[in-house]
Amino acid sequence: MQIAIGLYPGFTALDAIGPYQVLTQVPGVEVVLCAAETGRLSDDNGLLHLDIEHTFAEVDRPDLLLVPGGFITRKLARDRDPIVGWIASAHEHTTYTTSVCTGALLLGAAGVLDGLEATTHWFAYDELATYGATPTERRVVQQGKVWTAAGVSAGIDLALTLVAEVWGPEVSQAIQLGIEYDPQPPYDSGAPSKADPAILELVRAISAEKEAAVRAG
Amino acid sequence: MQIAIGLYPGFTALDAIGPYQVLTQVPGVEVVLCAAETGRLSDDNGLLHLDIEHTFAEVDRPDLLLVPGGFITRKLARDRDPIVGWIASAHEHTTYTTSVCTGALLLGAAGVLDGLEATTHWFAYDELATYGATPTERRVVQQGKVWTAAGVSAGIDLALTLVAEVWGPEVSQAIQLGIEYDPQPPYDSGAPSKADPAILELVRAISAEKEAAVRAG
Repeated sequence: MQIAIGLYPGFTALDAIGPYQVLTQVPGVEVVLCAAETGRLSDDNGLLHLDIEHTFAEVDRPDLLLVPGGFITRKLARDRDPIVGWIASAHEHTTYTTSVCTGALLLGAAGVLDGLEATTHWFAYDELATYGATPTERRVVQQGKVWTAAGVSAGIDLALTLVAEVWGPEVSQAIQLGIEYDPQPPYDSGAPSKADPAILELVRAISAEKEAAVRAG
Repeated sequence: MQIAIGLYPGFTALDAIGPYQVLTQVPGVEVVLCAAETGRLSDDNGLLHLDIEHTFAEVDRPDLLLVPGGFITRKLARDRDPIVGWIASAHEHTTYTTSVCTGALLLGAAGVLDGLEATTHWFAYDELATYGATPTERRVVQQGKVWTAAGVSAGIDLALTLVAEVWGPEVSQAIQLGIEYDPQPPYDSGAPSKADPAILELVRAISAEKEAAVRAG
């Protein structure tokens, strides 16, 4: 089974690396990081630089496709970035087409989410709806072969859930133990419904600023 | 405040990227990824290739130092890899010296853990004790300025806890909401005390194999 993680300049690191860490532990799978071009590709902080070895063209028939998010996805979706075409074309043959966070907007732009329930970062529900999807607040949303995860860290849960479905509960549990995923955050502030309203407003304002900067840039 | 994440060939990706995703969201901090040499550096899967821009020599006085783990840490510790000297020297001036997973073994080799409680991946408790540390099963262990986290994914919890201490609970909560860290793994198998005994044995056997391969390599 070939698993392709499709990247682009400006992706959010944990969106990709969370699922990567889970999926690379599955025995016998091939995980490929790919992008429109080979060579240097930086994350949304401009601090993490990857050296990409495989283009979308080389990885055109993955069994499982995963797309991470980033503030730039709205711009990529609007500009019909090469990743949108790759998703649309690969999706015809995948066993699973998946996204983390605002990677869902790229799935949307590729026509994958039309008529489906889906999720994304809580900040992007409205944008998601413009692609014919019904946004839901569930952390991992499964609609046939199309699976979407909520923001950033939710990719870990999506990957563990997917591993349980495809390779069985024991493999998922073994990987969970291997990465010692026994979460103990110091606060319970990880969802809009749980966070303090003032914190929610703060993060909404910061996110709007970041998004505006990316749109302008 | 300068935060240095010290890397080496064979590091485990999520060990570094979990805390990186949290710490890069703190307003006004400088996060630097550094290694013994600039240029290409690959993770323990040999699939993720980073382009490193800063050497340890350039980042010799970080305020906060974080070292991720990997199966190769035992070998690096034994061989007195350059990262060990960097930790020992930088630690004299840090405000916080921290590790994730078996990064603790490198802190140990640098003499940082002698006489302290500490944690690491559950598979490496015995090795940790050889450095004068008292291994504990807590997910994040705070001993003055020396903080250690359990395996792989525990770095996210360490970083959020550290942010709460240094920048305040509101900043930690805002970042948690920003990365939508509201964990919902499909099983509760993330710690040896919670996992099915058969799963624990399986992961122990796989880990022993991987470690032996790295020792031999």
